[in-house]
Amino acid sequence: MIPRVPSAPRTRLTPVQRRAQLLELGIEMLSENRLEDVAIDHISHLAGISRGLLFHYFPSKRDFHLAVVEAAAQHLLDRTEPDPHLPVMKQLRSSVEAFVDYLAEHRTTYISLVRGASGSDPDLQAIFERTRRAIGDRILDRLGVTDPLPGVLAVIRGWVAFADEVSLDWLAQDAPELTRDGLIELLEESLVALIQVAAAHSR
Amino acid sequence: MIPRVPSAPRTRLTPVQRRAQLLELGIEMLSENRLEDVAIDHISHLAGISRGLLFHYFPSKRDFHLAVVEAAAQHLLDRTEPDPHLPVMKQLRSSVEAFVDYLAEHRTTYISLVRGASGSDPDLQAIFERTRRAIGDRILDRLGVTDPLPGVLAVIRGWVAFADEVSLDWLAQDAPELTRDGLIELLEESLVALIQVAAAHSR
Repeated sequence: MIPRVPSAPRTRLTPVQRRAQLLELGIEMLSENRLEDVAIDHISHLAGISRGLLFHYFPSKRDFHLAVVEAAAQHLLDRTEPDPHLPVMKQLRSSVEAFVDYLAEHRTTYISLVRGASGSDPDLQAIFERTRRAIGDRILDRLGVTDPLPGVLAVIRGWVAFADEVSLDWLAQDAPELTRDGLIELLEESLVALIQVAAAHSR
Repeated sequence: MIPRVPSAPRTRLTPVQRRAQLLELGIEMLSENRLEDVAIDHISHLAGISRGLLFHYFPSKRDFHLAVVEAAAQHLLDRTEPDPHLPVMKQLRSSVEAFVDYLAEHRTTYISLVRGASGSDPDLQAIFERTRRAIGDRILDRLGVTDPLPGVLAVIRGWVAFADEVSLDWLAQDAPELTRDGLIELLEESLVALIQVAAAHSR
């Protein structure tokens, strides 16, 4: 069903702008709906275009959904990209802060990406894996590690899963005992401790 | 399609035995197939019973699939249950060893449980959450912690996700640089380090 909201006035957008607009609307819907409930009719109505035009940009509903999840993942990576001019520990802090805040704002989107989306669909699974890898690779890059010990690589990747679990669990609590800052510090200190364990272990 | 394997001779089993047999066959199939490919026809054929009789035990294909995943999760919990008479650190070691070996033997089953299964299906998601919780609760129990600091509870739950990610990543490598024992030690030392971080943090 299409909610009775006024549709956007028909504006001339370039194809690039139109595509970006449709993806933004998709991401926005994903923050309150599961992926399978992101309806083409609703999106094209909000954009003030016909279903047909949407399918011109995304040949099928599935193509649109994959593109929305891909864009959401990129959005997360952009949001958590730390300023490379900061000292490394400050970069870690600002990135973890951005991650926790992103999750708090986009919990449903993130769950779609991490859990919902990572189900038995191999394409969604691939987006999920690429995103986790990209976060791990960025940590290594900022640490200046080009040839990580196998244990260090393993714990950094594992920490991304750890941070997901701890943060989603925290968000699911009605009255979490940990404060936002406490959570951020815990995630940060955990990464440092895990890298120390792995480095000592590999020696 | 039903592979041309001889069907089991029709044996009289008690209902409890029959139910257990069907679940065992399901778990076995799950170790080489995705959940959605665990076929009722094949299972009933292997058990030497009719489809109808299988549906007597499990009203629908979905009920059967859920019961198989539930049984696989219980199987994992049983396999990783450490001897309560061992010292705590020995219990941790034996449990982590059992976990890594279980994963190596039942990789597909485990991926179905962790990833495939944890998709958008709320019932499978619930089994997955319960299993993770049970592992975390057992760790707390064996540590003798009845009223954990919030950070300690968080890192223990997070570590279960960490251990999943690190182990599945290790299993996916063709020639992992970490040995099995190296992986087990890394997981073990990581848990200890994370608990230390959380305990120091909560002070």
